[in-house]
Amino acid sequence: MTQSHGWAAQSASTPLAPLKFTRRELHDHDVLVNIEFCGVCHSDIHSVRNEWGNAVYPMVPGHEIVGRVAAVGNGVTRFRPGDLVGVGVIVDSCRTCASCKAGEEQYCEVGATLTYGAADRYGDLTQGGYSNNIVVDDHFVHTISPKLSPAGVAPLLCAGITTYSPLRHWRVGPNRKVGVVGLGGLGHMALKFAHAFGAHVVQFTTSESKIDDAKRLGADEVVLSRDPTAMQKQAASFDFIIDTVSAPHDINPYLEALKRDATYVQVGLPDQPPIINMGNLIFRRRNLSGSIIGGMAETQQMLDYCAEKNIVADVEVIPIQRINEAFERVVKADVKYRFVIDMASLDRA
Amino acid sequence: MTQSHGWAAQSASTPLAPLKFTRRELHDHDVLVNIEFCGVCHSDIHSVRNEWGNAVYPMVPGHEIVGRVAAVGNGVTRFRPGDLVGVGVIVDSCRTCASCKAGEEQYCEVGATLTYGAADRYGDLTQGGYSNNIVVDDHFVHTISPKLSPAGVAPLLCAGITTYSPLRHWRVGPNRKVGVVGLGGLGHMALKFAHAFGAHVVQFTTSESKIDDAKRLGADEVVLSRDPTAMQKQAASFDFIIDTVSAPHDINPYLEALKRDATYVQVGLPDQPPIINMGNLIFRRRNLSGSIIGGMAETQQMLDYCAEKNIVADVEVIPIQRINEAFERVVKADVKYRFVIDMASLDRA
Repeated sequence: MTQSHGWAAQSASTPLAPLKFTRRELHDHDVLVNIEFCGVCHSDIHSVRNEWGNAVYPMVPGHEIVGRVAAVGNGVTRFRPGDLVGVGVIVDSCRTCASCKAGEEQYCEVGATLTYGAADRYGDLTQGGYSNNIVVDDHFVHTISPKLSPAGVAPLLCAGITTYSPLRHWRVGPNRKVGVVGLGGLGHMALKFAHAFGAHVVQFTTSESKIDDAKRLGADEVVLSRDPTAMQKQAASFDFIIDTVSAPHDINPYLEALKRDATYVQVGLPDQPPIINMGNLIFRRRNLSGSIIGGMAETQQMLDYCAEKNIVADVEVIPIQRINEAFERVVKADVKYRFVIDMASLDRA
Repeated sequence: MTQSHGWAAQSASTPLAPLKFTRRELHDHDVLVNIEFCGVCHSDIHSVRNEWGNAVYPMVPGHEIVGRVAAVGNGVTRFRPGDLVGVGVIVDSCRTCASCKAGEEQYCEVGATLTYGAADRYGDLTQGGYSNNIVVDDHFVHTISPKLSPAGVAPLLCAGITTYSPLRHWRVGPNRKVGVVGLGGLGHMALKFAHAFGAHVVQFTTSESKIDDAKRLGADEVVLSRDPTAMQKQAASFDFIIDTVSAPHDINPYLEALKRDATYVQVGLPDQPPIINMGNLIFRRRNLSGSIIGGMAETQQMLDYCAEKNIVADVEVIPIQRINEAFERVVKADVKYRFVIDMASLDRA
């Protein structure tokens, strides 16, 4: 067994605290990664607090992982010890269904294996990246360019690919007017990517205080979504809108902002189902869709693109000892735009 | 002025009764059509009863019109007196917006002019096809093949194109599994078209009594949508589903029946907004969309296709004197599958 230690929740109501645990021995295709940085995703909080109702404890969260290869199984040819690598939201899938074969492992029809809180194919409970190391099948490990700040890369593994994938899928690029709803961990990546792809990007926000930051991050325009006159001016003008907000909110005013045949994609999963005025879809043949992370090949493509364009997340690096305070600040949306844990701090306590 | 007579509602609560009224003199591009048959659409009932809140009275309903050209304006070259023609749900649009230029006049960004109950570009109130004649700009008049039963053709102008257009738009054809929700005026046309296009067609219905008829109309399978086990067997297997039901209903079990990246299109406008479990969209990147009738070129294409394939609606022909009774039966879904008024009956009373 591989000895590991990290920070875990023991129940839905206890703060994260240190935990020693084991990971599997390396199978032929496994990679042992010594973790250097791990991003703090809002999903980590939902999961450890059992807000989605499927938590298994103890739970070490974390699925925005950057580290260095420490050892590889006999069948691994893509990685060598010392390589800088990344691991994201899933660590396995069936490999044989139509989605897996199409390189869309995130939509695996049997169900992809989440990086933490799930049973893997050996029957073990997966544990995430708020820890010193992780063992992952090489198909789910990505190469990271040393040109980028590794702390800034960590959030690309979830917030990055979650926004990159739908922007590519719906062909966002030059001569397209694209809206981003919400400016948090996901939203700020959507803004950076849509801008990098050459679209005309409009940030929707409820907060005047975010206008300057949105422009700095790539917005061509910023619209205050609580201003009905400002919203009215945007009517039927967008080719695509990506909604990164998981708090309950009325999406109908945004649907009205779409052109005929345009798509609204939700990447945040709201706690309550939205109420859709179907006329907003029917009378302009608009599409409402959703999307989750991306496939493994596409994740690598995104990481390579980020290296080429020098794109990383805006992060606040913290030691693991501040994780419970960071969770509180994430819940209050008080972070620009992602906390990333420096795992060197693990051995300080 | 052109003298006309038909049956009209004088208020939301009065039955239809005879009315004499006038239509405009023919402008250069106008066609005067002597109406022979007019289909009875559920929209006619919603409209005359002001259930959509925008009724103007008196109102002569009817937008599934088949008749013969009686006269044409000086600029009309496509039609001659005696031609069999059809008129559908819209009789004008701006002709200059992006949707009109794309041949999608139904999505005119200024707003297409409805065949009845709307102000036309001359400021007159439009009146529909429960009448002896109609004056329509030739761009909104379609050629009807004499090979088809004109009574059976009438519903193609609304129920037909409303289902044909999305089936074409989302490329329904061989090797595609397609679902039809609801077996009424729209549903039975969706079934006929999807079958004619070569798809594997599954009819969803709440009613065991419709199984045989669905198979006769082209269904390869019939699924009773209130049977959870039967529905479960269909999970994640459909390339496309068209929902023709306008009564409130839970669409989530149907969304679960779609494959990754597949589309659910609503063509009936429900009175209440559906509650969408967004996870059903997000976890398979499924699309929820809507669609309304079709463009003018596409409507002609559909009529030509129907002539080639010998497709018409299944109709029950009635005299105008039975229209109020027919309305009651439509509300109870007691018609297989469309009432069509024989306008020769107009002069009998």
